[in-house]
Order: sequence, then structure tokens, then C-alpha cells
Amino acid sequence: MDTSGPVPPTRRLSTGEREQAIDRSAPVLPPALEIDENNYFENNAPPEYLDELARQCEEFVKMHGTGRIVLVTSGGTTVPLENQTVRFIDNFSAGTRGATSAEYFLENGYAVIFLHRQFSLLPYSRHYSHSTNCFLDFMEENDGQVVVSQQYQQQMRTVLRKYRAAKDRNQLLLLPFTTINQYLHTLRTVSVILQSAGPRALFYLAAAVSDFFIPPSRIPEHKIQSKAGGNKLIMDLDPVPKFLNRLVERWAPGAMIISFKLETDSEILISKARQALERYSHQLVIGNLLQTRKNEIVFVEPEVPETWIRLSDEQIKDGTEIESLIIPATIERHTAWIEQSK
Amino acid sequence: MDTSGPVPPTRRLSTGEREQAIDRSAPVLPPALEIDENNYFENNAPPEYLDELARQCEEFVKMHGTGRIVLVTSGGTTVPLENQTVRFIDNFSAGTRGATSAEYFLENGYAVIFLHRQFSLLPYSRHYSHSTNCFLDFMEENDGQVVVSQQYQQQMRTVLRKYRAAKDRNQLLLLPFTTINQYLHTLRTVSVILQSAGPRALFYLAAAVSDFFIPPSRIPEHKIQSKAGGNKLIMDLDPVPKFLNRLVERWAPGAMIISFKLETDSEILISKARQALERYSHQLVIGNLLQTRKNEIVFVEPEVPETWIRLSDEQIKDGTEIESLIIPATIERHTAWIEQSK
Repeated sequence: MDTSGPVPPTRRLSTGEREQAIDRSAPVLPPALEIDENNYFENNAPPEYLDELARQCEEFVKMHGTGRIVLVTSGGTTVPLENQTVRFIDNFSAGTRGATSAEYFLENGYAVIFLHRQFSLLPYSRHYSHSTNCFLDFMEENDGQVVVSQQYQQQMRTVLRKYRAAKDRNQLLLLPFTTINQYLHTLRTVSVILQSAGPRALFYLAAAVSDFFIPPSRIPEHKIQSKAGGNKLIMDLDPVPKFLNRLVERWAPGAMIISFKLETDSEILISKARQALERYSHQLVIGNLLQTRKNEIVFVEPEVPETWIRLSDEQIKDGTEIESLIIPATIERHTAWIEQSK
Repeated sequence: MDTSGPVPPTRRLSTGEREQAIDRSAPVLPPALEIDENNYFENNAPPEYLDELARQCEEFVKMHGTGRIVLVTSGGTTVPLENQTVRFIDNFSAGTRGATSAEYFLENGYAVIFLHRQFSLLPYSRHYSHSTNCFLDFMEENDGQVVVSQQYQQQMRTVLRKYRAAKDRNQLLLLPFTTINQYLHTLRTVSVILQSAGPRALFYLAAAVSDFFIPPSRIPEHKIQSKAGGNKLIMDLDPVPKFLNRLVERWAPGAMIISFKLETDSEILISKARQALERYSHQLVIGNLLQTRKNEIVFVEPEVPETWIRLSDEQIKDGTEIESLIIPATIERHTAWIEQSK
């Protein structure tokens, strides 16, 4: 797999991208960054199972020859603080956005590669797995048979049918990760495989990816002892190289790429989203605030004003999921991207 | 609730405990420790829901008037790195030890208070909730009814019956936590309520509790920006006060207390366990190594050699759970504790 070659010559640059290309040679993004990104994959070994995931992914992409494929990333990546990991830094994310979005993509005919944090929410099973109800509370014994209790039958039947339909059509590929390193290696591998889908590929990067990590050279082998460091723990973390640039330019040059920006401070949300767009020259940033993320999000795109998507009071009362509005709006833009790439 | 009163006069001290009492006035454990522990609860507000948990717990303890009650703690506590939490430090623990142990306590007639990390494994539902199978893979539609597929019927019926039996007898109380602060407040509250059970109360502290935290005065309000600190993240954490002492002496003076010691380095496991016993003067430390924790553990008790509990090769092949050996051995010691307390 070629992951470090030059920008493919077939790629047409927009005005914004050309400006960006100039920016990249300026001192704000020194050549050191390039080296850091290369070094990352040299110094952080791929997970052992990666070849197997690649095989599954290649088969899946081949199977969906001319259709649209979305890579949905979901859940938080972890940063191990010890080599034999007892402690790790985690990013707040149950995977709700990713799992819910995946369902709406499936219902709109997309093939979905779901790159998710292991044990985070999955499409369809999410309706039951992380409820405060114990799973067994949905069940009862009836004539010696374990069945779903009457009051849950109707909803579970609907969910089960959708799940089976996606499964029977081989529309959903589940790929797990836990650490930031597993995530980055898998993202790179899947992206390169998706090159064959060209603009039909959509990247919907909803995972909460760690910004900082401890490089393998500095990571302790054993559990950090609580007496260490005079009873204080000082942790010194390096920034995770920003790979979105690489993704846009080299790993998936023909695809449409959507990143997410989660903030807690509403004052900086739009500017951070615009910054990301300018820095990585991709097509769409979906911004959201931790506090209101289930009820409103904002589409930030190059050269146009931002578009808010909000649930109405009535929709909130009805339990409408905001992803049922986000995905059609996203698909509209993906359709335009495919048209424009012709 | 009295949580800071003097050591109750009814408590008889063993030789080891008397030595410990002397040690405590020595410079290795300065008076500052005592103040730190008091300060903790003054400076870290209780979770809002604590009164409701206390109410449920009081009712539960009253209901099990003369029977044995075990508090099982399970799963890892988190340490938020931001006030509106995006990032947190977590401790590796799915809650397998706690959830599995709770089942064997229930089957041995104990009432179980299960203080667990929210969404970690629960007794009984653990057999299905964190499997790599999607929950819906266990289900099928049969004449329009959602039922458990034939191949899973027998096992699920067994599990469901045990779960229902525990539920119908009100034998299991589920109390959740997420952060270290929620855990500590709830532990204190539950312990004081359990005082009325005297030696019938058993503490089985299997949760993976954080050793370090960021005090509220130093915690940033918003998400840490990845540009902060010259592109490096330096985190400065304080040790979590050691509350086991307080638990043994004041919160639950009559109860039998078991703590766990998880290490990755076999060289230090026993010495760390002995150290904990000496420091906190409780009754039993169950030691285990991250690598082998499902197949062997060690009981470390005051004044006697350690006792290893290991699964035989045959038991490993059969899928015997080591908790089916740990719990009877634990109950034996609890029985002796009750006898000795008369």
C-alpha cells in the first residue's frame, strides 16, 4: 500500500485548496510536521490484527462496487499511560453520534464501515446495550422459552428487522479499535483501500480522537506506582500528529471528508471549525457543543456561511434524533461532491 | 451520619493493629494525612443523587435484617481532566471480577450491594452485554414474535432464572458511579449505613480506584486546547487520599474488609499486598497480576503465609470461573470473622 507518495496528479485543487497549498510551505507548518507524521508510523507498530481487518475491508469495498460507501468513525480513542496498561486517558464518548448516524446512512442505501471503539454503542443494538435497564429486564420465560416481553416486542421487532436487513445485504462492516495507535493505523489502511471508490467514498469522522499521547520510548513498562514522583504524578504528553491533512491529500484524495469539532465553549466553536477547514482543506466540519450536541449542530463549509441544524421543541418532545436531519443534509453535499468530481 | 468520630470503643485491636496504631503516630504517616482526608470531603462536593442512593441503601439493609450483606465495588473510577469533561483518566477494568463475584455471593445467600462503574459489567447480564456479538444476534423473529434463538435458549434460561430469583428476593441493589469523587462519597455513605449490620457486613473492594486526581481548584473549566503549553500537555496530579484506613477504623469498624491489589510486576505483588495490610489493618488482600488474573489469585492475610488459588488446566479448559473458588474461600473467612466478633 502506498501511503507516503506524492499528491496524486489526478486531483483538481479548488481555489481554497491552492491557497492552502501555498500556506503549507510557510513557516506556520514547518517541514518538521511532515517528518513527525512519517515518524509516527515508523515508531508506533501496527496492531497485529491489522492485516485481517484490511482483508475484510477489501472484500467489503469490492462487494459494493459502484455504490456509495461511508466510513463512520465512532467513540473515543484511549492513550495508554503504561505499556501493560492499567491506566489510560480516555475521551468522553459513548459513540452515540456515530452509531446513530450509521443507522441513517444504512437506511439511505450506503454501505457503512463502522470503525468504532470496542464496546461503544453499535448501530441498532445501541437501543438496548447501554440502557440503565439490565438487558435481562427485556426478557421473560414463556412456556420454558426465553422471549422478549410483550411491552418491548414492537420496538424490538422494528429494530431487529432493520438490523437483519443491513446484515443480510452485507451493508455493515464493524471494525474495532481501543487505543489511538490502533485507530490511526486502521484509519490509514482503510483509507487507502477506499481509494478505489473515488468520490463515492465519504469519511464521517465522528470519533473523539486523542490530541496527546505518550510516545513508546517514554512509556513505562509497568503500572505507575503511586509513591513515584514525591507523591505527585507529573505526566508529560506529546501532541498526536495531525493526520487529517495526510488523509485529505494522500490517503483518500478523491473522497469527501467530514470532520467533527466538539467544544464546550460556544465562543470558540465556529472559529475552531473554520481553522480546521483552512488547515486541512477538507469539505465540511460539523461543529457541536458538549452541552447541546443532541439538539443542535452546525455545518461549517469553505467559502459559505455556516448552516445550523436544530431540532424544534416539538421534535425534541417527540424524541426525534438530530442525526435524522444531519444525514440527509450530509448526503446532499456528498451527491454534489460526486457530481463535481465527474 | 457520623463519619469522623473517634474509633468506637467496642472494637478489639489485634496485635498487628496495635502496632499499626503506634505506627500511625510516627513521622511516616504525619498528621497532615488526617487533614487531607477531612479536606477531601469538604472540598469535593457530593454528587446530587447521593441522598437518593442513601435512601435505597438504608431500605435494603433494613430488609436484610439478620442476613449477611456484601458490598461489592466493581469497575474503574475516572478522573476528569476538565470540569465540563471531555477528557478523563480511566483505570483498566471491565468489571469482570466484581460482576462475577457478585453472582457467586448471591448464589451463596448474600444480599449484594453492587457499587459499580456505570455501564461496566453487571451480574448476570454480563454474559451478554460486552460480548463481541451484537445483542441482536441472539434474537430472531418467530411468527412475528421476537424470541431468543434456539441455540442460546438453554444458557439464557439458566441465567435469566438466577437473575429473576435474585431480583424477586430483592437480593441485589445496583448503585452506579463514574468519577473517583462519586465513588468516594458513595462508599462513605454506604459504609456508615452498613454499620448496623456489624460483622455480618463484608466489603469486597474490587473496583480499580484512581491513585491520582486533579483537585477542583486546579481543574480547567473548558476542554484543554491542544495548542496549550507549547504543544505539550503537562499534567500535574495529586494523590487521592488513602481512605481504606478511615473505612477500617471509622466508617465500618465492625465489618470484614477485603481489598484488591492489581499489579503487572510479579516481583512486587506480595510485598505490596503485605504493605497494604500493615498500613490499613484490614483482614484480607486479594492479590492478582493483570496477565494471569483470570487463572490465579493470592490471599494475603495478617500473620499467616499467603494462600494461592489457582485453576487447574482442566478447569481452565472447562471454562470454570476462578470466582467460583474465590467466593467460598472468602465466605469461610467471613464466617470466622463473625464467630470471632461474637
